Amino acid sequence: MTIAIINPNSSHTMTQQMQSSCVNLILHNETQWYECSNSPASIEGHSDGAQAAYHLLEKIRELESSEVPPKAYVIACFDDTGLDAAREITASPVIGIGEAAMHAASFVSQRFVVMTTLERSVSILERNLSHYGLANRSGGVYASGLPVLSLESDQQSYDIVKRAASKVLNEYKGDALVLGCGGMSHWVERLQSGIGVPVLDGVRIAVAFADSFISLKLSTSKVAGYAWPEIKANQN
Amino acid sequence: MTIAIINPNSSHTMTQQMQSSCVNLILHNETQWYECSNSPASIEGHSDGAQAAYHLLEKIRELESSEVPPKAYVIACFDDTGLDAAREITASPVIGIGEAAMHAASFVSQRFVVMTTLERSVSILERNLSHYGLANRSGGVYASGLPVLSLESDQQSYDIVKRAASKVLNEYKGDALVLGCGGMSHWVERLQSGIGVPVLDGVRIAVAFADSFISLKLSTSKVAGYAWPEIKANQN
Amino acid sequence: MTIAIINPNSSHTMTQQMQSSCVNLILHNETQWYECSNSPASIEGHSDGAQAAYHLLEKIRELESSEVPPKAYVIACFDDTGLDAAREITASPVIGIGEAAMHAASFVSQRFVVMTTLERSVSILERNLSHYGLANRSGGVYASGLPVLSLESDQQSYDIVKRAASKVLNEYKGDALVLGCGGMSHWVERLQSGIGVPVLDGVRIAVAFADSFISLKLSTSKVAGYAWPEIKANQN
Amino acid sequence: MTIAIINPNSSHTMTQQMQSSCVNLILHNETQWYECSNSPASIEGHSDGAQAAYHLLEKIRELESSEVPPKAYVIACFDDTGLDAAREITASPVIGIGEAAMHAASFVSQRFVVMTTLERSVSILERNLSHYGLANRSGGVYASGLPVLSLESDQQSYDIVKRAASKVLNEYKGDALVLGCGGMSHWVERLQSGIGVPVLDGVRIAVAFADSFISLKLSTSKVAGYAWPEIKANQN
Amino acid sequence: MTIAIINPNSSHTMTQQMQSSCVNLILHNETQWYECSNSPASIEGHSDGAQAAYHLLEKIRELESSEVPPKAYVIACFDDTGLDAAREITASPVIGIGEAAMHAASFVSQRFVVMTTLERSVSILERNLSHYGLANRSGGVYASGLPVLSLESDQQSYDIVKRAASKVLNEYKGDALVLGCGGMSHWVERLQSGIGVPVLDGVRIAVAFADSFISLKLSTSKVAGYAWPEIKANQN
Amino acid sequence: MTIAIINPNSSHTMTQQMQSSCVNLILHNETQWYECSNSPASIEGHSDGAQAAYHLLEKIRELESSEVPPKAYVIACFDDTGLDAAREITASPVIGIGEAAMHAASFVSQRFVVMTTLERSVSILERNLSHYGLANRSGGVYASGLPVLSLESDQQSYDIVKRAASKVLNEYKGDALVLGCGGMSHWVERLQSGIGVPVLDGVRIAVAFADSFISLKLSTSKVAGYAWPEIKANQN
Repeated sequence: MTIAIINPNSSHTMTQQMQSSCVNLILHNETQWYECSNSPASIEGHSDGAQAAYHLLEKIRELESSEVPPKAYVIACFDDTGLDAAREITASPVIGIGEAAMHAASFVSQRFVVMTTLERSVSILERNLSHYGLANRSGGVYASGLPVLSLESDQQSYDIVKRAASKVLNEYKGDALVLGCGGMSHWVERLQSGIGVPVLDGVRIAVAFADSFISLKLSTSKVAGYAWPEIKANQN
Repeated sequence: MTIAIINPNSSHTMTQQMQSSCVNLILHNETQWYECSNSPASIEGHSDGAQAAYHLLEKIRELESSEVPPKAYVIACFDDTGLDAAREITASPVIGIGEAAMHAASFVSQRFVVMTTLERSVSILERNLSHYGLANRSGGVYASGLPVLSLESDQQSYDIVKRAASKVLNEYKGDALVLGCGGMSHWVERLQSGIGVPVLDGVRIAVAFADSFISLKLSTSKVAGYAWPEIKANQN
Repeated sequence: MTIAIINPNSSHTMTQQMQSSCVNLILHNETQWYECSNSPASIEGHSDGAQAAYHLLEKIRELESSEVPPKAYVIACFDDTGLDAAREITASPVIGIGEAAMHAASFVSQRFVVMTTLERSVSILERNLSHYGLANRSGGVYASGLPVLSLESDQQSYDIVKRAASKVLNEYKGDALVLGCGGMSHWVERLQSGIGVPVLDGVRIAVAFADSFISLKLSTSKVAGYAWPEIKANQN
Repeated sequence: MTIAIINPNSSHTMTQQMQSSCVNLILHNETQWYECSNSPASIEGHSDGAQAAYHLLEKIRELESSEVPPKAYVIACFDDTGLDAAREITASPVIGIGEAAMHAASFVSQRFVVMTTLERSVSILERNLSHYGLANRSGGVYASGLPVLSLESDQQSYDIVKRAASKVLNEYKGDALVLGCGGMSHWVERLQSGIGVPVLDGVRIAVAFADSFISLKLSTSKVAGYAWPEIKANQN
Repeated sequence: MTIAIINPNSSHTMTQQMQSSCVNLILHNETQWYECSNSPASIEGHSDGAQAAYHLLEKIRELESSEVPPKAYVIACFDDTGLDAAREITASPVIGIGEAAMHAASFVSQRFVVMTTLERSVSILERNLSHYGLANRSGGVYASGLPVLSLESDQQSYDIVKRAASKVLNEYKGDALVLGCGGMSHWVERLQSGIGVPVLDGVRIAVAFADSFISLKLSTSKVAGYAWPEIKANQN
Repeated sequence: MTIAIINPNSSHTMTQQMQSSCVNLILHNETQWYECSNSPASIEGHSDGAQAAYHLLEKIRELESSEVPPKAYVIACFDDTGLDAAREITASPVIGIGEAAMHAASFVSQRFVVMTTLERSVSILERNLSHYGLANRSGGVYASGLPVLSLESDQQSYDIVKRAASKVLNEYKGDALVLGCGGMSHWVERLQSGIGVPVLDGVRIAVAFADSFISLKLSTSKVAGYAWPEIKANQN
């Protein structure tokens, strides 16, 4: 049985990086990793997200109609791009890396802070946080100013993120750090030992949760909000 | 100067119906009406919405690159499909018919109720209501059970909606009715005189607001959340 | 048909200033401007507001009993003085300049900030913001420290307001500025070009909305919360 | 030292009734009871409230300028008419009977319900409940349909209120009853033994709290929101 | 490495039942099951909970000082008895079955309902729901009226719970059912096939999450709210 | 008739200090003061609280079974340790010093701030504040960094608290100060005159409220959430 992990953007490098961050995770199921080749190279803002959601859904439909469809899906963008739409078109559980990280943070801390990339993503994540219900468990969402695609690289980027994270943890009295972009998943352990609070990366957590959901035989409700899409009569 | 009103679904009949409901509205600007021919015939649920958002954005980009771009946009689906993404790709104001109706209702009532089509849309609209901040001004969102494309028609459909509306107004102590689908816009006056409370139709309200926003020279903020999309470096 | 715009305080200078800020607004209806000669000269705090509400209601009752009552009312104080009481004593729509500006801001920005005059008004406006439901769409309400009646004047006052506005926009990550007092309406364009985010003035917005509401034939619900006042039996 | 209890409406009968309900209350301070002879005979809705607030403030100003001003004030209308304005014009504590009853209820129950008179008062009380913060401690506000001035009388009125109270306690799982009008204060004990849950009457509770606040030397903050009114320069 | 699952009440039968419901769960770590022999036989209400929390903490301290302390803890009462206190006295993750079930439900449904035992537990669970942030993801908490210790038994009890669950799912438009007591864990599959929506049992979910948290090396933050207890100076 | 005031920790010195701060309070009932000799010497965090709650309940049960049980209880720890559990095991009103102070603050201010001891208590008090509903009436909870047992002493401690209080009042625009620990009750008047805003001490307020509740014959609801504990069948 497999977990399909879909990066909704088109960056293969980022997919690989996230995959390698999961390499030591012990799982009961196999993982398969995808990106969406027609999507923007990164998802920064609402319109990138709308583009990517479209292609993500195409990919899920394709996998659903394959001979052996995945038993669970992970959407590997911290914005949880297309999450609710995805839950309509499959009965397998679908887990966003953003929601996974933020929910998990509420099990090990009282007031986590989220460090994302650009200022423009802050309102998107705040809205998710609020929709998931975790706004009152959080000390807020903050941007390092570093764009997604710069995260794949070097020492300098790491330093900027670490400094920004320490600052907001201190200022907003955070006791855990959630990494607000899949592109930071390779920094988890380094940041954790550098900063001294739990550091949560949604990629690994979502994959582990997907693995658990398969064991638990949890599937998405097909009543009301996540019911299968309506069949339309042909019409103009 | 023109207001572009875009129906995010592909139903030309519905576009025409909405257009004819606005025929008596006195405006300072011209209106142009569009649908999205590659979208689903109606938007019922998250995945229809994700499809339609993609095509809506295409249409807006096309209009923005035209010689004389519209001075304002109306998104003519009560789900406010793709609203935030649309606001990123133009500086002209963009108004959703759902938000227009719900905000306007809060100016003339203390506890409006929303009557939509299918149960599956309830959670989408509740989330919008909550994001717009109007949840505490509302007596809730309810479904008549009648699918979107049935709304274009006959006496029987009208009766079902009227009965459902009266029931929830009474049960949840509503003092105004918001029509939760663009496809009901032709029933406003009939329902209002039949039910005895203000009945609000987002299509006409959003068009009137767009007209006002042009007079008021209000444009969308290009700082932070609605900033122009990022230019991506080519990358894989 | 006319829109009656009532300044609930007694400052004729302020009425004139607000009127002149609307001079270029293209409307379908005529406007008539009033102040309340027995009210305090400005409304700063709850007790000024209670005084002014009393006189505002007198004025509305007088206009309602005139031969051709107004088709819509605007209450031209940012506190929205007496707004709910006014909605009981007329069926015409009544729009407060505070609510108009704050609702409109939520259509063009993700996180507007409100700049008012004195610290004592902050809690009044925060409560309105919260009652209108827009608290989560806002970066907060702040005071420049400049009293209402100083706003009518000179360069120095403008500079204080501009500096205060820039500071809070930056500090609380605002992407639009709402002017929290009718007395600042003459500064809209100047501030907007000076600060670089949309600047919203409730006076012009409320007048434009009132104009639209007349076209849309929207009237105040006369069920429950805004029902006509009860007739009392004579009694002691 | 005295507690001034001001009925903001003009009904002397109601003042007397409230006074007699307090006759067995053991207090450290004297009480003086007033009504506002120019106010409406009862306060039912926002415009009655705006009228009454004006006259209430007149009464408080008169008492404040007396030789020995009261040490505390009680506003004896469940709407807490003019409460915030009153707190501006005196440094003595001012307690509304509505807030007193609802706060006290949260000390002895998990989910109190409020039973008021007319449907039109429900939204006013819900807003107060929400402003005081107690909305999540409450099972809601309900109307018996009986107007204020009918409460002074007979068995039949009592029966209507008792039946309505029992119904909502059962339906909304309430574990205490708050009487939502000063005019019901004479029914406390009778209702309590009839219904089997704590019954809270704001009049007696507010008077007892005022008595305590005097002992505790608690006075109203004169910083920010409740600061003394501004002195206005003469102006037009 | 082991997961310690502690039933905070003293019922060994219930511990066994929960253990047997986990027998098919594939885990990477061993489980050890405990109850608290000095606790009440079931936890129904706040005072039972306070008793049980005391003994639960004793048990955790004992296990922490053992040679090989557990790598994760599960608190096997749906009230999440003593959860925050437990997180202070160990750095290993501690997961309550209530929070586990409710968080998981928000990944597979839009509006789960919780079915607990007695009415008295409803307010406790509502408060947890609200503290976890999931109140707006839920259609509410309801009681079947069946006490905890009756859950261990027969067909009749099952029927009562099933009927009660179906009723509230329908009435409050739920799309998933959370079993609000560890004592119902043996009914998951039977209920799920009987009712047609996902049925979530906190015991199995919490154990699976604990297993994942160990793999993910997630530990409890030791900063601020969950810091190690203070050492007290001897004092009187 | 007596009010039993129970300090849930074991510090007799602190009990004496709180008692002496009430010495000038004029009451209708006698007071009896207790501490819990098996509890921690101070309550700093969740696990101290769980310990103390257990012993507090023992003390209340003991007093309830005495010949003349108290007519009201005060729990003299600002965390309101064991408050809900206590309300189950007596019908007499039970008042926490934290809730008393915070509710009272909302009668005399618009935005009180709470100054507690250690950072670890902040999240506990924020949760209480939020459960009581007063979060939106507050400018927040802050820690001076001074442990509970240092509060009993000298000038230096006083200075630290005063400085910390002034800072947060200014920074978060507070207009009243709530002392967030029973151990500061002897500083009320000194702080009040030093800082210039109302200073609220829960000990004196809770005792005065308990005195009032006895006069008002208010008792705890014995329906649903605070019903008498269930009798358990013997069972394993």
